[in-house]
Order: sequence, then structure tokens, then C-alpha cells
Amino acid sequence: MAPDSIPADAGPGPRLPGMFSRYKGRIEEELGRAVPETSGADVQLLLRYHLGWVDRRGVPAPSASSQGKALRPTLCMFACEALNPDCARAMPAAAAMELIHNFSLLHDDIQDQDLERRHQPTAWSLWGIPRALVAGDAMHSTGDLAMLAVAQQGVSPEVSLKVSDIFTGSYLEMIEGQCLDLEFEGRTDITTGEYLYMIACKTGALIRCGLEIGALLADGDDAAVRAFARFGDGLGQAFQIRDDYLGVWGDEATLGKATGNDIRRRKKSYPVVFALERADGAALSDLRRIYSQTELEEDDVQRVLAVLDEVGAREQAQALTERAANRALEALSGIGLPAWARVEAEELVDFLSRREY
Amino acid sequence: MAPDSIPADAGPGPRLPGMFSRYKGRIEEELGRAVPETSGADVQLLLRYHLGWVDRRGVPAPSASSQGKALRPTLCMFACEALNPDCARAMPAAAAMELIHNFSLLHDDIQDQDLERRHQPTAWSLWGIPRALVAGDAMHSTGDLAMLAVAQQGVSPEVSLKVSDIFTGSYLEMIEGQCLDLEFEGRTDITTGEYLYMIACKTGALIRCGLEIGALLADGDDAAVRAFARFGDGLGQAFQIRDDYLGVWGDEATLGKATGNDIRRRKKSYPVVFALERADGAALSDLRRIYSQTELEEDDVQRVLAVLDEVGAREQAQALTERAANRALEALSGIGLPAWARVEAEELVDFLSRREY
Repeated sequence: MAPDSIPADAGPGPRLPGMFSRYKGRIEEELGRAVPETSGADVQLLLRYHLGWVDRRGVPAPSASSQGKALRPTLCMFACEALNPDCARAMPAAAAMELIHNFSLLHDDIQDQDLERRHQPTAWSLWGIPRALVAGDAMHSTGDLAMLAVAQQGVSPEVSLKVSDIFTGSYLEMIEGQCLDLEFEGRTDITTGEYLYMIACKTGALIRCGLEIGALLADGDDAAVRAFARFGDGLGQAFQIRDDYLGVWGDEATLGKATGNDIRRRKKSYPVVFALERADGAALSDLRRIYSQTELEEDDVQRVLAVLDEVGAREQAQALTERAANRALEALSGIGLPAWARVEAEELVDFLSRREY
Repeated sequence: MAPDSIPADAGPGPRLPGMFSRYKGRIEEELGRAVPETSGADVQLLLRYHLGWVDRRGVPAPSASSQGKALRPTLCMFACEALNPDCARAMPAAAAMELIHNFSLLHDDIQDQDLERRHQPTAWSLWGIPRALVAGDAMHSTGDLAMLAVAQQGVSPEVSLKVSDIFTGSYLEMIEGQCLDLEFEGRTDITTGEYLYMIACKTGALIRCGLEIGALLADGDDAAVRAFARFGDGLGQAFQIRDDYLGVWGDEATLGKATGNDIRRRKKSYPVVFALERADGAALSDLRRIYSQTELEEDDVQRVLAVLDEVGAREQAQALTERAANRALEALSGIGLPAWARVEAEELVDFLSRREY
């Protein structure tokens, strides 16, 4: 499963930064405009269901508990406002970010045959693959239209075109990352370098692009746009490696022991890729044997956890997240930003790289 | 299966109009630029395979026999050249049309679980659903990027944006048509009105959009752009109803009798929808019973063919195609066009509405 928006049910660890609640209402409103209730047959029901707005019968969801935290649109709004107080013009772009992210999730769920997302049955599990596939395509195009709509916010045609170009190029990168991810499933010789490149595409491209587009729409100069893009590169890596960490050790804080969820699902996330690269002797042959099985017994999971401990995969994942977080902040250090934006950037990096959920 | 590009293997009936060979080489060149050999993992192999350029191992295909005739890009180039001799600027748009059409085919094959297209195994049947799904998404984005690239052909940012907007809106319509089509599978009470709306979305939108965009890129005035759009609406209907006709009676010319291929596949194409609307008594109850079965016996197919004869579905389909063809030509009658363009428009309409293959 691809890293989702951050779930709404908070846990221990750092608090959700204030920027999320600041933009939340406006992003929801803009998304409502981008996905009209009336248009086009029952595909709209699938879109609205997947976005957590209605149940499978179209009845409005009682709470927003099934919705994510809208990380990507929040980043887009933040970058724009950090450089220009008039950030309303970035609203359609922010909505587009969330729609494209959700298009990728709809298709991801089909690819991975995941039955649940955000504690709800996935769209394909309710409506079948053909309808969910088409709904994903509709979400994709709806996102493209939303991005093209920045031109109606007083943004010049030149910048509007540039923004759509960056956007499209970035999710083509995201798609290439998904391909690499599928390729990796059948291999046990992935290097950490290959893995980091894959997640830079699959997770990083859209995060970077949200920030870059936000900066562009703020009329930021080249240096500012580049700085926010590099900020996004660091942030994306920190976010994904933390996600990988939590997939293996995330329940320790609450349960007192790691249940290795992602190991049980045979996910080759960073800790496992690192171990496959670093281990030798019996540890390596055990890992390879276990990851070539189609299903894992409890003993296998425990053995993998032990090997990860042996090679120091946990410390390595933490150190890597830390370094990516620092790189992100350094990227912003050279450009002029108001004090509030610098504080919020730090809160954000802290949150994404240390969150416990 | 969605109506494909017209297959390269000609049969009886009117000859392929000359415009197809006139633009062929340039369209292929432009497509080659839009789908670079090097970029992004093995997803490119699936794209190139689906486009008929290489075999499943990546070896260049010996002939172009597995490629379609590139109807949509040809229409785009034709509309542009009919209004402006300098039609090179429409090349990226033409390539984009073909890529988006092929994105929809890649996903269509998954939805319909079709094993063959253009006499070759479908991508999903070779590489599995997850990879083919992602390849479709990559084809989609590659098409979007190609359309955005018209801005590099001296087209103003305003027109470039408008063209991308029309393009995206049109394939969102196409996607909504696919949804309706899926919905219709479970119903036996579809009206011909509903059916015609569905094909106007599923097939018509992209055909209209190619012509409309071609006219826009030629700097055509509003009247010319509207005329080409209406030309496309008529052409799209004539093309699809002829396709439906051939799906039922298309082999009569060569085999001497209708084998009712689309009936065997329980496709609710126009003749069947018309019969379901028009038949009564035993004919209607037979149709409903037969179309509620999961598989059809030879007797069932013959009974459906007999009911189609009884209600005059064949003559109705032909008359409808004829009327759509006339509407198409009338749409162009009010605008100034060079004589060659008028002749070619007639050849095209004649070909699409009377072809035997």
C-alpha cells in the first residue's frame, strides 16, 4: 500500500502542525468544487466514496474520520503563503494535488489487492476492478482539470502552463516509481540506492511538486522555487523512510513489541532492503529464503525482525530520516522567509520525520 | 472492446482516404519523440508493445501490421491543415490524441478481460493487471505532456492552455462514457437515447476534440472551430454505429452469413439496444432471457439475429449512420474551406460510414 495521507486518528509523538488545520476548510471547499455532485453517472459516487465524503450508498459520511489529512495540498498552500500572503490563487492547484494523490491510491489498491484503506473497504473490493479502474482515471482527469483552473485565478497563461507541465511530469515520475516498485517485488537483490531512487519517484515527486508549484504560484523567484523543490525532496524521503520504519516497528510504542506488519505482508521496505544488502552468511540466506516464500509464518516474521536488529536496520532508518530532514531544512536556509514560515517548516519536518502514526 | 483505430488489413468497401497516408510518417515520428526509448524502467516496454512498435521482448516489430491507422491524430492534422497550410504546429497535439486513445485501450482491455487486440495478446494478458494498469496511467500522462508541448511550437500560451483544457475535458467525457457502458452491462432496459449519449461520450468526445483542437491550432475563428467540433460529433456517431453494425453483420460480405460476433459476446451495441426497445411479445422476452444468461449457445445467437431482422435493426443502423454522416458534412458547409479539404472531408465521411472492416 502506498503511504496514504496521514490518518486523522492521532497517536503519540509530535502533534500535527497547525498548518494542517489552517488550510483544511478551504481545501475541502475547493475539492468539493472540483468533484461536482451531479456530473457523470455513478462514477462520481466512487470518487466521493474514495475521498471519504459518502458511504457506499452515497449517504454523506457522519464524520471526516475516513479522510486523510491532505498532506500534499497543505504543502502547496504553505509554500505559496510563505512567499506571498495572497495564497488563494493556489487553491485549485492544492485540490489538484489531492486528486492526483487519490487517483494513485485508487489504482494502487487494485494493484496490491488491498481490501481496506483508512479502515474502509477499498473501492475495487466493493465495485469490482473495472469500475474502480475507471474511477481512478476519472480522478486523474479531474485533477488535471483542477490544475488547469489556476488560469482562472489571475495566474498568467505562461505560469499556468508551466505549472501543469511540472505537475504532469511529476506524476509521470510517480507512475515510474510504481513500476519500479512492482519490479522490485520479484527481486531480493535490490540495492538501497535503487530503493531510494524508487521512493524519490513514487512518493517524493508529488511532494516536491506540490511545494514547487506553490512557490511558482506565489511568483517566487527561481532560487525560491528551487529551494522549495529541494525542501520537498528531503521531506519526501524523510516521510517515506519514517513510513517504512512505522510499518515494521510502529506498534512498539503502543503494544510494547514490534508486530512487523509490513514484514508479514512481505513488503520490501527500506529496513528489509538495507538488511538484504548488509547481511551475510545464515542471516542473508534466511532472509532470501523467507522472502521467496508466498506466505510467511510467525517464526519467519520473528527471524526477519531478529536479522533487522542484527544489522542495525532500525538505527540506519532513523539516521537516514534524520539526514533527509536536515537536508530539507537546509534547502530553505538560503532564501528569505517570514519568521512564521520558518517555524512552521521546522514543525512540519519534525512531525513528518518523528511521527508515531 | 472499444472501437480501435482502423486495422491496417484492408478489406472490401471504400478505400482508406489519402489523408491517412499523408500524415502517417510525421505522426509516427512525433509519437517516437513523445515515447522515448530510454525513460523509466520497463514500463516503456509495455507502452511500445501496446503501440505495436516492438514485440514482448522489445525487439522491433517487423512490420506495422499490428499498428492502427491513427484515426484521431489524422483528424487533428486534417482540421488544422484545412484551415492553415502551416499544420506542423499540430504535430504534438496529434501525437497526444493517439496516446490518450491508446491509454483508454490499455485500460479497456483490462476491464473487458480481452485477450487479443490487433491480433496480438493484450498487455495485461502478458504482464498481468498491475503492470498493464500502470502502463495505461503512464500512457495517459505521456499524452498530457505531448499536448502541453504545443506551446513549444510557437502556439501562444493562451491557446496552448485552452487546447489542454478541451483535451482533458474530452477524455473525462470519454471516461464517463466508459462508466455508462459498464453500467449498461447489467441492464436490459437501455433506451436508444441513453445508448447514443453513451457513445457520444465514449467514442465521440475524443474524435470531436481532435478536430476541434486541430481547428484551434490553425488559428481558426470561432465559427470554424465550432463547425469542426460538430463535424466530429456526426463523424463519431457514424463511426461507432458502423462499428456496431460490423460487429453483428460485418462478416456477411466475406462469409455469406452473419456470425453475430458481438452477439456471442453479449455486447449491447446499437442493433441490440434498438431491438430491446422496439420488440414486444415473445421476441422481447426471448431477448431479455438470452441477454440475462452468462453464456450464449449457437441457438441463442441465431434467435437474436432473427429478432434483429424482425424489428428492422439492420436498416435502422444503416439509416442512423447515414444521417450522422450527413450531419457531419452539413456542419462544414457554412465555413470557407479549400476545395481539396472539402473533397477529403467527403471521402472521410464516406469511408467511416461505409467501411466493411
